[in-house]
Amino acid sequence: MQTINDYLSSHKQGLLNELFDLLRIPSVSADPTYATDVEAAADFIKNQMTKIGLDHVSVEETPGYPIVYGEKIINPDLPTVLVYGHYDVQPPDPIELWESDPFEPVIKKTDLHPQGAIFARGASDDKGQMFMHLKAVEFLLQNQQMPVNVKFMIEGEEEVGSPSLAWYVARNHNKLKNDVIIISDTGMVANDIPAITTGLRGLAYVEVTVTGPNRDLHSGLYGGAVANPINVLTKMIAQLTDDKNHITIPGFYDRVKELSSAEREAIAKMPFDLKQYQKDLDIDAVYGEDGYSTIERQSIRPSLDVNGIWGGYTGEGAKTIIPSKAHAKISMRLVPDQDPNEIPKMFEDYFKKLAPKGVKVSVQNLHGGYPYVTPTDSPGYKAAAQAMKKAFGKEPLPIYSGGSIPIVPLFEKELGTKSILMGFGLNSDAIHSPNEHYGVYNYFKGIETISYFYDFYKKQLTK
Amino acid sequence: MQTINDYLSSHKQGLLNELFDLLRIPSVSADPTYATDVEAAADFIKNQMTKIGLDHVSVEETPGYPIVYGEKIINPDLPTVLVYGHYDVQPPDPIELWESDPFEPVIKKTDLHPQGAIFARGASDDKGQMFMHLKAVEFLLQNQQMPVNVKFMIEGEEEVGSPSLAWYVARNHNKLKNDVIIISDTGMVANDIPAITTGLRGLAYVEVTVTGPNRDLHSGLYGGAVANPINVLTKMIAQLTDDKNHITIPGFYDRVKELSSAEREAIAKMPFDLKQYQKDLDIDAVYGEDGYSTIERQSIRPSLDVNGIWGGYTGEGAKTIIPSKAHAKISMRLVPDQDPNEIPKMFEDYFKKLAPKGVKVSVQNLHGGYPYVTPTDSPGYKAAAQAMKKAFGKEPLPIYSGGSIPIVPLFEKELGTKSILMGFGLNSDAIHSPNEHYGVYNYFKGIETISYFYDFYKKQLTK
Repeated sequence: MQTINDYLSSHKQGLLNELFDLLRIPSVSADPTYATDVEAAADFIKNQMTKIGLDHVSVEETPGYPIVYGEKIINPDLPTVLVYGHYDVQPPDPIELWESDPFEPVIKKTDLHPQGAIFARGASDDKGQMFMHLKAVEFLLQNQQMPVNVKFMIEGEEEVGSPSLAWYVARNHNKLKNDVIIISDTGMVANDIPAITTGLRGLAYVEVTVTGPNRDLHSGLYGGAVANPINVLTKMIAQLTDDKNHITIPGFYDRVKELSSAEREAIAKMPFDLKQYQKDLDIDAVYGEDGYSTIERQSIRPSLDVNGIWGGYTGEGAKTIIPSKAHAKISMRLVPDQDPNEIPKMFEDYFKKLAPKGVKVSVQNLHGGYPYVTPTDSPGYKAAAQAMKKAFGKEPLPIYSGGSIPIVPLFEKELGTKSILMGFGLNSDAIHSPNEHYGVYNYFKGIETISYFYDFYKKQLTK
Repeated sequence: MQTINDYLSSHKQGLLNELFDLLRIPSVSADPTYATDVEAAADFIKNQMTKIGLDHVSVEETPGYPIVYGEKIINPDLPTVLVYGHYDVQPPDPIELWESDPFEPVIKKTDLHPQGAIFARGASDDKGQMFMHLKAVEFLLQNQQMPVNVKFMIEGEEEVGSPSLAWYVARNHNKLKNDVIIISDTGMVANDIPAITTGLRGLAYVEVTVTGPNRDLHSGLYGGAVANPINVLTKMIAQLTDDKNHITIPGFYDRVKELSSAEREAIAKMPFDLKQYQKDLDIDAVYGEDGYSTIERQSIRPSLDVNGIWGGYTGEGAKTIIPSKAHAKISMRLVPDQDPNEIPKMFEDYFKKLAPKGVKVSVQNLHGGYPYVTPTDSPGYKAAAQAMKKAFGKEPLPIYSGGSIPIVPLFEKELGTKSILMGFGLNSDAIHSPNEHYGVYNYFKGIETISYFYDFYKKQLTK
């Protein structure tokens, strides 16, 4: 019987070439000018699913970009694993900061990746990680080692908030029926410290507009006498956090679950090199809520970030105007049990109260997601931990991620099953940034780990 | 001897037709596609200067658009008046908001102009006002009533910041030698309230950049733990003014000349309709420094406005990033005796101190201009006031403008003489906006007033 490691060494170049072909498709879901490329990526996934031997493969229409579905039912009485991933990617902007073409993958060595890393938009998030699942299942099917049923659901709108996924899942409960969902769209602590993400932050994302005078004004003739919407907006945003970096929105912390001292002690023991963290980001200090460590600030505590701000003249040189409007996009990361439907309302009430006379304020709720926790004593978690231990030689750490994957609570609500976040990326992968990359080691280790998962999972359920 | 009023009534149509021919030339200096039109306007002025009897008329080359020069030296021992104006105009955009072609002048009656107003780009700013000077001098020369020497310097880059003017003035000190400069490029309070602008605010204009992490970060993974440059920038800008809207930069007010109670009482008596002001801007309240009226806030007090701000994701929908950088353009209007070279340094020192650890701050000084005052006891001011009183039947009010006209302090520095801002426009002329217009009354009253000025000026000097 061929082992996964034999398979990986004999197919190394082919496994890279196939991923490179996928990475060359600029499937940017946020920008409509890439629409045909996003569709091309869906077709690519469909062809892959057919090639690896899945059945009922189809590009499923949705109100947005399609979801690619395929399955292999070994035996209807066996457990079923649902694999979720996404074929769309973040925009490459700012493109001038890329050292190589974001859609022409190249392998370059880095300090953390002596075996090389694949530099391309989507290399880690999520094409590289999603593709590992197809390749692991290809190996298992080719070698008649697939112990359970598997279904794939790969979407094309994750980077724009998965607007069609709920629509699709709600209409396909039966088709998507499963015992556990596995997703590789997160990271480990380091290449020698495997991890499984058990907690996710939720999200509330709003856009605010402050309107002053009904037209842009000459700042000489009116400056000092009329509320300038940018000056006002900066004052309003500044008041959303206090001098201890607590968020000041009334009621914001009411539902926040404080962790036990034991849980916080476990977090304090996590390997974390603050110096390296600061060096990696080229900052001379971290910055955050008083009384919490950096790991806590970015995982178990809620946060408030301005993701974008704009207003007035932003071109070359000097233009002396008071603009009519100023805008900002503001997002809040939520932790259990904060509610993404309740928080934007609290925000809006408070934000409007911060406005002085002389301006009008509007708040638009753009999107949100619930925070989430996976129990470490569930069969899916245990199987994933066993697979990782076998591949990496080390028990993985259960970690909280600061990110949000709103689809995970959605799946639980619609399909009744837990998701296992078995990710193989690193924080340094620069996802959503220029020069995104994914370790060659991580790519192959991921395929290996996933190939072990199915057998451990079957054993967990039949113990 | 023919009086100016005889002359104006017998030449009414011709004086309008000539101005209309000038207004038909779309001499938009900001847009290179109009380059030949800008040159054509310069030629038109040259031909006018020749026609009215000036000597040494020439279109003077500069690194940009030409300056048209002409002079009439009656007697080298007599005083010399230098007239400054500009033949270029603002772009007509947004052109769809014009009710008639911006470059095909029409006369229409309005509430404020029962005798009609000339609607065209440049009608008030500055073709209409500059042309009055040529026509007043034409009348004086034709009737052998020119009591002093006169020089004209009419430029074509005022609407783009007069980049070549300093170059030209520095090279022509002798040619431009004068005793006083008169400029009609400002306004009166109302058609029955003549005014002369005696104060102008100066300007300090900087661009600031706050840099946090060395790349855009995922706001889920890092949010709460790293200084977000936008959050930080809003807090820093918010601290530039206090809750009384005083500017907090240490030393900022040190050189500010407080007006005497008598001067402030005169300002308080100026006609001003706050309700109409708010209605015009569609705001429910004004906003500014505690303890000062709206007129004071926008003229005799310094101000600080953010003219533009940008950073992070500003497209459609939601992108969850912490940007690496955030930027703002910030300008301060200055009053006597604040120094535009000193203020940006004070700003930079203070602004950098406001930055928390975890970010880097840079401040770039974009440009500046000195505040300016014309003494009301100077011969030029007195002559202008006498001329206005004779034409309008009322003593003009000395007014402070909140705007900056950097060329005025430039002339004083280079040529050593004061400028008299004897403007005849109204705030409602919509300069720089669609449907710019200039009252027919104002046009003829301006020619009349200017024709009186020269004699009063000679008498002021020979008293």
